[in-house]
Amino acid sequence: MTHYSSSDLKNMERFYRGNLINSVTGYKSANLLATRSINGIDNLSIFSSVTHLGSDPAMFTFIQRPLGHGVGHTYQNLKETGVITLNHIQLDLVNKAHQSSAKYPESTSEFEALNIEKISRDGIQAPFVKMAAIQVAATYESEYFLKENNCILVLCKITDIFFNEGIQSEDGWLNLEKAGSIAVNGLDGYATGTVQKRLRYARVGDDISEIEL
Amino acid sequence: MTHYSSSDLKNMERFYRGNLINSVTGYKSANLLATRSINGIDNLSIFSSVTHLGSDPAMFTFIQRPLGHGVGHTYQNLKETGVITLNHIQLDLVNKAHQSSAKYPESTSEFEALNIEKISRDGIQAPFVKMAAIQVAATYESEYFLKENNCILVLCKITDIFFNEGIQSEDGWLNLEKAGSIAVNGLDGYATGTVQKRLRYARVGDDISEIEL
Repeated sequence: MTHYSSSDLKNMERFYRGNLINSVTGYKSANLLATRSINGIDNLSIFSSVTHLGSDPAMFTFIQRPLGHGVGHTYQNLKETGVITLNHIQLDLVNKAHQSSAKYPESTSEFEALNIEKISRDGIQAPFVKMAAIQVAATYESEYFLKENNCILVLCKITDIFFNEGIQSEDGWLNLEKAGSIAVNGLDGYATGTVQKRLRYARVGDDISEIEL
Repeated sequence: MTHYSSSDLKNMERFYRGNLINSVTGYKSANLLATRSINGIDNLSIFSSVTHLGSDPAMFTFIQRPLGHGVGHTYQNLKETGVITLNHIQLDLVNKAHQSSAKYPESTSEFEALNIEKISRDGIQAPFVKMAAIQVAATYESEYFLKENNCILVLCKITDIFFNEGIQSEDGWLNLEKAGSIAVNGLDGYATGTVQKRLRYARVGDDISEIEL
């Protein structure tokens, strides 16, 4: 096997290290987070750090990179309005979604700059990505400043879930392959998924058995 | 689209809600975290909450569920020894990896109970999963108690990376499809990935262009 030690990592060229380290934790979620500024500008940005955090209360987290230099419109809007939406990315939206990571000025809506269709819903003060098969609305819950690298872990509480017909199982589970959801590989790789199996809750001594898809 | 509101979520049957909420954030990483107790018992457990956290210093996080009732051997060992390994899961390891989530007693090594072959490496006080195509060693860095649901965000610093030949690009990126790495869909679904494309760093005004795979 190829081996990189601590000192190899430390001395690595910066982009090479970024590509490597962002790959070694495995596939990541691909989500477009949408917010509306207090001036009415709709912001959209791709995040690969969204993680589930319990289901009662239903929450998710994302990691905000160190602020400044045009970074952090999503975070700023969320703090000011308290509302955010999470929208899954399908293959035919990948190019535009990736381009949303460019540093557009605060006065520019990525929906307009990238020609991504949005929808509004009553009572939710942030837009949704119309073509997303799974859409979630959430509110700001709290945050933790991670002093180790000046990032912020942001906690959001899920208030509403919308999804296309035909992707949910009888037991509540959503089939992400049927939803066409993409996964992120590293900083810039995009993968489709093929669901291979579901397995029943594991107990010591029980045989491993599958749940019908 | 199907719509669930806050009150729908609140009143949902517990397992139905768990299946739904664990699906709506998208695909998750699938990793076996391995530790060695101070009594020499090797622990192995599947986690779907591992997230990258910067590349200089190279870190990752995982979320430790509320402790107690036989939960938390990974966390306990990591705190006591300071060392942990992260091992990717391929399709032919999924059943055993899933079964590692059962509550084996502290005195039982999941490596032995599940017949998963391990390897040791000089200077690293935690075992690795031999058949994992990507293996990472890390040390305990710090933690944040998330009071919103009594979970712990654990930060680990990457010290060593090992991976099979043939999966790395010239620019450092690891191809997770070639590694055979699995993604998690919800609580109990397992998906393989197909890398569709890589895209160049996005800049305002630039055309979107692909990086050769």
